Amino acid sequence: MSDKATSSAGPVGVVGLGSMGFGMAGSLVAAGLDTYGFDVASAAVERFVAAGGKSGELQDLAGRFSCVVLVVLNAPQTEQILFGPSGLAARLGKGTAIIACATVPPAFAEDMAARCEALGLQYLDAPISGGSVKAAKGQLTIMASGADAAFAAAQPALDAMAERVFNLGPKPGTGSAMKAVNQLLAGVHIAAMAEAMTFGMAHGVDGQQMVEVISQCAGSSWMFENRGPHVVAGDYTPHSAVDIWLKDLGIVLDMARGKKFGAPLTAAALQQFLAASGSGLGAEDDAAVAKVYARNAGLDLPAKA
Amino acid sequence: MSDKATSSAGPVGVVGLGSMGFGMAGSLVAAGLDTYGFDVASAAVERFVAAGGKSGELQDLAGRFSCVVLVVLNAPQTEQILFGPSGLAARLGKGTAIIACATVPPAFAEDMAARCEALGLQYLDAPISGGSVKAAKGQLTIMASGADAAFAAAQPALDAMAERVFNLGPKPGTGSAMKAVNQLLAGVHIAAMAEAMTFGMAHGVDGQQMVEVISQCAGSSWMFENRGPHVVAGDYTPHSAVDIWLKDLGIVLDMARGKKFGAPLTAAALQQFLAASGSGLGAEDDAAVAKVYARNAGLDLPAKA
Repeated sequence: MSDKATSSAGPVGVVGLGSMGFGMAGSLVAAGLDTYGFDVASAAVERFVAAGGKSGELQDLAGRFSCVVLVVLNAPQTEQILFGPSGLAARLGKGTAIIACATVPPAFAEDMAARCEALGLQYLDAPISGGSVKAAKGQLTIMASGADAAFAAAQPALDAMAERVFNLGPKPGTGSAMKAVNQLLAGVHIAAMAEAMTFGMAHGVDGQQMVEVISQCAGSSWMFENRGPHVVAGDYTPHSAVDIWLKDLGIVLDMARGKKFGAPLTAAALQQFLAASGSGLGAEDDAAVAKVYARNAGLDLPAKA
Repeated sequence: MSDKATSSAGPVGVVGLGSMGFGMAGSLVAAGLDTYGFDVASAAVERFVAAGGKSGELQDLAGRFSCVVLVVLNAPQTEQILFGPSGLAARLGKGTAIIACATVPPAFAEDMAARCEALGLQYLDAPISGGSVKAAKGQLTIMASGADAAFAAAQPALDAMAERVFNLGPKPGTGSAMKAVNQLLAGVHIAAMAEAMTFGMAHGVDGQQMVEVISQCAGSSWMFENRGPHVVAGDYTPHSAVDIWLKDLGIVLDMARGKKFGAPLTAAALQQFLAASGSGLGAEDDAAVAKVYARNAGLDLPAKA
């Protein structure tokens, strides 16, 4: 670990330039922060640099960051980046804030926070919500927990990336538990959107009309309004892929089992995402779970224009 | 049937002064329409008259109405009122609009419309959404289908009761099919709200914080925002009762089976409402489905202050 304590206004590193990370890194650049982006895919890095960001060798630059944002897929990737063979944690300056955004089990966030704290780092358990469009606009919702010092060190970056930052208290894991609640609902709502849209179509209801009417009714959800149009347009370009839900609803159901908590709707939704992934749709937009319903009902979905 | 053709600006009768009908009748009064209210419960009628409405003998007054709004519980009640032993259909003036608001199977709406049309009446298949608070403010959403003449005759009453009236075309049954789509989503979303709130509480997440945070995240739904606070407050005063969902999700699943359409989330949600009703919670607010989850998980829910 570098001995250099960095200020909260110093450079920011973003690890992971996928659909969410790219937008978040762009928001940091737009806010005037000195931002470096990193990704295993060199094309993503080139795209970020072309968009005004900086990059370089993560291990060489690590000691300069006041804040590092981890926007990777899951717990194993988060651990690998921080504590793997060429781990970042040992190279960051004391007091550096780590904003960990992946959806992970709360117990994993607690473990990461303890190990980071032992190295003098400020770990923020900081899952995100909002999708790639809001990520690019700096309008995410961040549900974070961690020490006050972690919030203080992370504040400039949080402000740049989020419309709303919820401080859920000092305990790492609380942020991830809240995210699990959100993913339970989001996953169930996507499957429910698919179930409802295909049910309606099977009964002759027009898809576009369903989106318009239900959005104004008590049956609406954020996911219905966001994903329903994908089914109507027959456009399954992945904004968020089916396979995300195998992971996230898997975390929810593992947590549930740990508390002997029965979650029948979550379990039913996961079965539908498994059927989508198992039949080759795992990399499509998660609205493609509608194809499972349509196939089972002998129904033709709208094709892409 | 009376031979008197009534104008669209004539008196309106509202049959059914429950949580929805009372508010809708009040909206008609507030809009300056000459409104008569009827209910089997005399207390509801007295309350409506005290609030500025009129009442009397439905059978004697029927011939004077330009429009009748049926806000009863279900298909059997709708049929009984129109075509039972002292049925209204035979007493209404030619051209009278019937705004039928109960949640019913589409095939039932088609049958009612055909029988009413044969008597020279204008039947509007016009289910509603929005809840009792919006009903009282004249801010409902109405998803209606029927002949243009039916819409024309019903327009003054529709305008008074609804913020948005969707004209879904000339075919009776389309309105009810859309309502079934809405109820599928609404029922699943209430059960998902209960599953998520109790899951979060089992993991130490604060209930009030869940409502605040999730409402700003992609996991939100109209039902989560509306019913979540009931669980946090421990207040199960029935705005909409558990038993409504035994009926409405039953209609959805009957329709689904008719098309050989598998609806696993709807089926799972119905099981939770059945467990709530079977264990004595049928008349409580539908948010009480959370008690089923809490009981199964050995969890204490917030008590009413």
